[in-house]
Amino acid sequence: MKLQAKKTLDEIQRVRTIKLTIEYDGTNYQGWQVQAKGPTVQGTIEEKLNLLTRQKVHLIGSGRTDSGVHALEQVAHFTTQSPLNTQSIRKALNSLLPPDILIKKAEEVGEDFHARKWSKSKVYEYRILNRELRSVFHQGYVWHIPQYLDLKEMKKASEHLVGEYDFSSFRSTGSLTRTSVRRVIRVEWKKSRDGLIRIEIEANGFLKQMVRAIVGTLIEVGKGKITSDEFRKILLLKDRTKAGPTAPAQGLFLKKVKYTE
Amino acid sequence: MKLQAKKTLDEIQRVRTIKLTIEYDGTNYQGWQVQAKGPTVQGTIEEKLNLLTRQKVHLIGSGRTDSGVHALEQVAHFTTQSPLNTQSIRKALNSLLPPDILIKKAEEVGEDFHARKWSKSKVYEYRILNRELRSVFHQGYVWHIPQYLDLKEMKKASEHLVGEYDFSSFRSTGSLTRTSVRRVIRVEWKKSRDGLIRIEIEANGFLKQMVRAIVGTLIEVGKGKITSDEFRKILLLKDRTKAGPTAPAQGLFLKKVKYTE
Repeated sequence: MKLQAKKTLDEIQRVRTIKLTIEYDGTNYQGWQVQAKGPTVQGTIEEKLNLLTRQKVHLIGSGRTDSGVHALEQVAHFTTQSPLNTQSIRKALNSLLPPDILIKKAEEVGEDFHARKWSKSKVYEYRILNRELRSVFHQGYVWHIPQYLDLKEMKKASEHLVGEYDFSSFRSTGSLTRTSVRRVIRVEWKKSRDGLIRIEIEANGFLKQMVRAIVGTLIEVGKGKITSDEFRKILLLKDRTKAGPTAPAQGLFLKKVKYTE
Repeated sequence: MKLQAKKTLDEIQRVRTIKLTIEYDGTNYQGWQVQAKGPTVQGTIEEKLNLLTRQKVHLIGSGRTDSGVHALEQVAHFTTQSPLNTQSIRKALNSLLPPDILIKKAEEVGEDFHARKWSKSKVYEYRILNRELRSVFHQGYVWHIPQYLDLKEMKKASEHLVGEYDFSSFRSTGSLTRTSVRRVIRVEWKKSRDGLIRIEIEANGFLKQMVRAIVGTLIEVGKGKITSDEFRKILLLKDRTKAGPTAPAQGLFLKKVKYTE
């Protein structure tokens, strides 16, 4: 009798798809995706969702972020039979989560929404602190470069990225994906008076460590080691060994994931 | 012979007074001043100065900051016979210090300079994050208040602070100093679009936890629990038990210590 009643209850609770918009400080995480060792953002949120919904939840992100990379607005989704409304889910999750993860929004979306497959473009921001002195308040959130950087030449170089290219020169060595062709939609630069440089890159998708390889190579341009023309040639060579070093994870922020309505 | 030579060397090294301007993230420290237990900012810098100068250095700050309070520009001085120039002292200290303490400046000053006695005024900044959602990147550096705050009334209340008053209502209970009269020179407010409120207070000196008691009481005004007129009465009562709670340390920054040239 009891089992019968439970089954009926489960049946009347329809499966909903919930979209989460998530801010996190990646400093203390082994990246987004669940790993064999060490805490991950996905794993931490899943654990709290399991508690909250009393069901085993699988949270699917728009994509991975590396160990130490931050997010201003990562997007993820999960399906659940829990009757909790989205506002309760957001508030309860935020009270359970550690202070370095925050659910900014929880929304019910169409059943077939998929955070990765449906994403149209992503925006990453890379932060460089370009001044002699480091800063105790920026540490962990910038790449501190005390040397002079030729910003004009760096911007010129970065303009070559806009368009559809095989970005093999700017990917993690040994990474495998079906295609390494991506379309960079825009590259924007901001510099504040205190020496903080912010590079914003939007693309329809990114290869593993693509932004960090691009920024590492742009810094070579800024230091005068290569010209903006040589930067363009590196892009066209499709050879990772020709590009600069990978910029540190701590300066990178996943800023936005865009979907068509 | 050897001892004799050393003594002569010490004698020709004149004693210099060095002024340091220091930025620190107070999160992991038991405040500025050396304590029986736990790391302090003063203790951490002294330890590195001892290494550097090979002498026992006593570092004197412009004043204490409480456990968890930050500094954008704390000032301290020490005397030394070390022949190291100030630029070398700054660079060597910064390479030895942990990432949450930074020496922004090291300058040779007049022999009789005293960081505490010579200070003419100090500027503190208190940061409040007034919006529904907390922020993972502000945590540890703001007091998050999700409720509505009546900023206009808070500003009005804060104007009553300007002038020379006995600030006994806004001091740590049980603290003893010769006089509790201080002169508040200005109170300024800044609010940014993301809900960050910054209150800047300059005074010729501050009592223990004075800014935090003031801010805690201003928040009571903002929440409508007391009016700006009642705030003024609390100030004039010189009775700590009449004021609001002490605002948390993490939102407080020592912004500047001013000296007459």
